Amino acid sequence: MTTIKDIANCLGISASTVSKGLNGASDISESLRQTVLDTAVELGYTTRKMRGRDHRKVCLFVENMDYETPEQFGCDIILGFRQVAFRENFDVTVFPVTPDIQAAEKYDTFMLKHGFVGGFMVGFALMDDWMSQFGTTSIPTALFDNYIRKNPLVASVGSDTSEGIDDAIVHLMHLGHRHIALLNGSWHSCITEQRRQAYIDSMTAHNLPFDKGTMPYGYYVADSAKDHIDRLLSMGITAILCGNDLIASGVIDECRKRGVRIPGELSVIGFDDIPLAARLDPPLTTIRQDRSELGKLGFYALHSLINHIPISRTMLRPQLIVRKSTGPVPSQLSPTSG
Amino acid sequence: MTTIKDIANCLGISASTVSKGLNGASDISESLRQTVLDTAVELGYTTRKMRGRDHRKVCLFVENMDYETPEQFGCDIILGFRQVAFRENFDVTVFPVTPDIQAAEKYDTFMLKHGFVGGFMVGFALMDDWMSQFGTTSIPTALFDNYIRKNPLVASVGSDTSEGIDDAIVHLMHLGHRHIALLNGSWHSCITEQRRQAYIDSMTAHNLPFDKGTMPYGYYVADSAKDHIDRLLSMGITAILCGNDLIASGVIDECRKRGVRIPGELSVIGFDDIPLAARLDPPLTTIRQDRSELGKLGFYALHSLINHIPISRTMLRPQLIVRKSTGPVPSQLSPTSG
Repeated sequence: MTTIKDIANCLGISASTVSKGLNGASDISESLRQTVLDTAVELGYTTRKMRGRDHRKVCLFVENMDYETPEQFGCDIILGFRQVAFRENFDVTVFPVTPDIQAAEKYDTFMLKHGFVGGFMVGFALMDDWMSQFGTTSIPTALFDNYIRKNPLVASVGSDTSEGIDDAIVHLMHLGHRHIALLNGSWHSCITEQRRQAYIDSMTAHNLPFDKGTMPYGYYVADSAKDHIDRLLSMGITAILCGNDLIASGVIDECRKRGVRIPGELSVIGFDDIPLAARLDPPLTTIRQDRSELGKLGFYALHSLINHIPISRTMLRPQLIVRKSTGPVPSQLSPTSG
Repeated sequence: MTTIKDIANCLGISASTVSKGLNGASDISESLRQTVLDTAVELGYTTRKMRGRDHRKVCLFVENMDYETPEQFGCDIILGFRQVAFRENFDVTVFPVTPDIQAAEKYDTFMLKHGFVGGFMVGFALMDDWMSQFGTTSIPTALFDNYIRKNPLVASVGSDTSEGIDDAIVHLMHLGHRHIALLNGSWHSCITEQRRQAYIDSMTAHNLPFDKGTMPYGYYVADSAKDHIDRLLSMGITAILCGNDLIASGVIDECRKRGVRIPGELSVIGFDDIPLAARLDPPLTTIRQDRSELGKLGFYALHSLINHIPISRTMLRPQLIVRKSTGPVPSQLSPTSG
């Protein structure tokens, strides 16, 4: 086991200085403290507090995601996570993390410094600094909608995207649609790529036409719709599957401005089933993710990792919620002429 | 909610006869009782006992797998499952199921009749009668090493096969091997196909040669090795990845008979790390599945389904255990000449 003396030897400083760094004493510089912590992490040092059975602090990091109100995607994930954590006597800190924070401090250092025994990451993008560190982190870490290969201390939690997308496409096929687009969310996101692959797989399996033009990238916001809607409509698309409910709400708005009837002329499907979905006009057909259960699953996965059970991946089945934004294909574009 | 009267109306018999069928009274025929139970299941009827909070009986079905002693693959899975079930106050019945039993009675009927609120299936093959019923079962059911699409009451539990196989192939590559075969287990098995696909993906990713001849099917027993070993050796294969440890033990035996040195002339890797693996001569390098934790995960998944949490898939990371059955590639077949 790594000792304070090992860290001191490695850095060529005294053991008492290392102690000060580890304990956050005020009479050493912040940069030296960072070096001490970075080195402690590199050498696999754990504090007595971290090894103890009483120490049960975990951190839920949120990025690129709103979670302040129940209307927002992240809220129920956090609630579900907190609920199960509470039962298991863990303290949860919710920390809105930024690229700057990630650039300023290594993930393991951050966790060690604050005494967190595990992390749950929600809303991370592939290019985030910390993402590249999860392959070798020594801190139990569960990732929502992201997957890291081969680190037994990291688990992936999310929805079974391929089933959800296929359910939506089968629903549209039963309504006669063949020309179905995927208006996706942002580049550089694991979940965006999963949804794209699920669309490709399902369209291929059902022998439906698609190409690059039918699966544009956008952003996970309503405003993203206006950049794509005219082109998709001009291509003869009769149904749009959206990367999330916000994009779908944007599609509905843009169609209203153009006098395109939903679902008479265009069917629209969202993803997530945030509370807004049911209140849209027309109410949105969408692929529901049970965010509260996903949050609970996130804690379960993290708790397993903390107990040395190397969960790799755990997923929930999403559920297609059929409302009024999907209907039969417009007759001039029915499958017989399509 | 379906009532006894609904079942009676559907069958054109009296409600009291339905009651007798549901309660196992002795004064109606077994065939009528079967019909009553089948219909009750079809109509979604649940007994009060099944709805009650006290009723916590689950069944662990085993097929095609030995589990009587700790030496055998299934033993620790069952133990792990039982351990967690006990904590949660569930009774576990372990039931060795056969094709005949499956042919004689529908799965849902069997479960309803015996008052089981959930099932965990270990060792099932794709052609098993009950496998075709899991797509529509209304009984919470977790499957070890099998996957059923789109039924929110069915979950899949197993190891992350693709990582395990890739770890093994990377280990062999570092030892200079390029001509690596997969001596697989039985046809008609979900896990056999997963391992085959993982082998194909990994060999492709690392730009190593393979074809149908390098990935033969066999059976999950030691005896399977003798049918393939001569052909694989004559092809210039320098390492064999086996579908399980028993097949690997057979490869070692056959090599001894032929005077082929392991690992001097051939490297061998197993799958599972059953206790036998460490006692083989040479001790077997193998991809470890933590069967106790997999059993616990099986109960966790089943418990989640019983609580209406639609787990789709949950997996553990396997671990490559390096022992003495793998070594550097024989020099005459080193990568420079291969």
